[in-house]
Amino acid sequence: MTEALRIVVIAPDLDVLDPRDDHALLQAERSRALRIGLLENGYNLVAVLPGDSFLAERLAQLQPDMVIVDAESEARDALEHVVMATRNAPRPIVMFTNDGDTSHVKDAVAAGVSAYIVAGLSADRIRPILDVAMARFEHEQALRRELADTRVERDEHKAELHNRKVIDRAKGLLMQRQGLSEKEAYDRLRKAAMDKSLKLVDVAQRILDVAELLS
Amino acid sequence: MTEALRIVVIAPDLDVLDPRDDHALLQAERSRALRIGLLENGYNLVAVLPGDSFLAERLAQLQPDMVIVDAESEARDALEHVVMATRNAPRPIVMFTNDGDTSHVKDAVAAGVSAYIVAGLSADRIRPILDVAMARFEHEQALRRELADTRVERDEHKAELHNRKVIDRAKGLLMQRQGLSEKEAYDRLRKAAMDKSLKLVDVAQRILDVAELLS
Repeated sequence: MTEALRIVVIAPDLDVLDPRDDHALLQAERSRALRIGLLENGYNLVAVLPGDSFLAERLAQLQPDMVIVDAESEARDALEHVVMATRNAPRPIVMFTNDGDTSHVKDAVAAGVSAYIVAGLSADRIRPILDVAMARFEHEQALRRELADTRVERDEHKAELHNRKVIDRAKGLLMQRQGLSEKEAYDRLRKAAMDKSLKLVDVAQRILDVAELLS
Repeated sequence: MTEALRIVVIAPDLDVLDPRDDHALLQAERSRALRIGLLENGYNLVAVLPGDSFLAERLAQLQPDMVIVDAESEARDALEHVVMATRNAPRPIVMFTNDGDTSHVKDAVAAGVSAYIVAGLSADRIRPILDVAMARFEHEQALRRELADTRVERDEHKAELHNRKVIDRAKGLLMQRQGLSEKEAYDRLRKAAMDKSLKLVDVAQRILDVAELLS
């Protein structure tokens, strides 16, 4: 048995204002069954919240391990709020919906939804679904971290290469116009950088800029 | 209605050798229900194959849009064959299994499984599940392509930077030891590269290697 996941459910109010509204009654029933299923499966259901603009603040306070969006007609709006609210601290997001229209699944997956469960579910299916959602989330986070690290390395190499080219060109210019040796040109650049508290590459770039202006 | 997906199902034989084997009967029944569900939903079920070592060759011939692994006790073996068989041409892989033990879900997701469906399913749940699996697969492929492209860029910048440093050091060595100007040193390197049909960086590296040997 793993430690109980701290789960926040995003769902509309269970109160049905109009008792003749079959659709609302059905949604409330399904929403209640989901919460019972989570509790029966031993999950730590820390809060049920409406999907509104206060969500970011509340999720920051609650720090859940997972967010479940239990919504139907308003699923898209609720998801948008959850995605905004978890942008800086990603969490696995699981969508439960009776809406069989999967035309916006692509957007939901791109927005960070780890599982998208259509149609009703029995209590014994909840745990495997959440296990899979958690595994997918961690897998994608690892992939995203790798991408972020690789981008940093690429950008560092790129910047270093650029700096080296700029410094070499400035050095070449000084050698050619002032009749300096390579070492003299380099020392001249270094001294200028120290005197002005600038980076070597910035001094080199200024020399190139001025040379272009005067040419 | 989108174009019918070409699907290959990996499943054991439906023939049950021992009519008293309840487990085998149940699995055969479930496997039959899945195929009926796929056909009813309008999918193009191009083949049902056993999960063996001939899979790679057969998938290469059939070029399916998606592979469904319908397996229970032998799920892990079958998945291993499918992962091997799709290594060079990734396909969305969907696992259907009655095995509620999700302890190896992490490995399955890392191996490329887009959806992992535990417990039985009704025909009306098949389409949304496959839609979601397809969306997840495409999303992850896009992420993987971006990672691969970024790695190539990083490695190119790194190699260019390395080459520049090697050439600069060899040039510096020639200037210092042979009393050449920068241009003369560079021309010497270029001529050597042309004469020996080598890259500039390889000539530079040889000069550095020899200098180190003799020092």
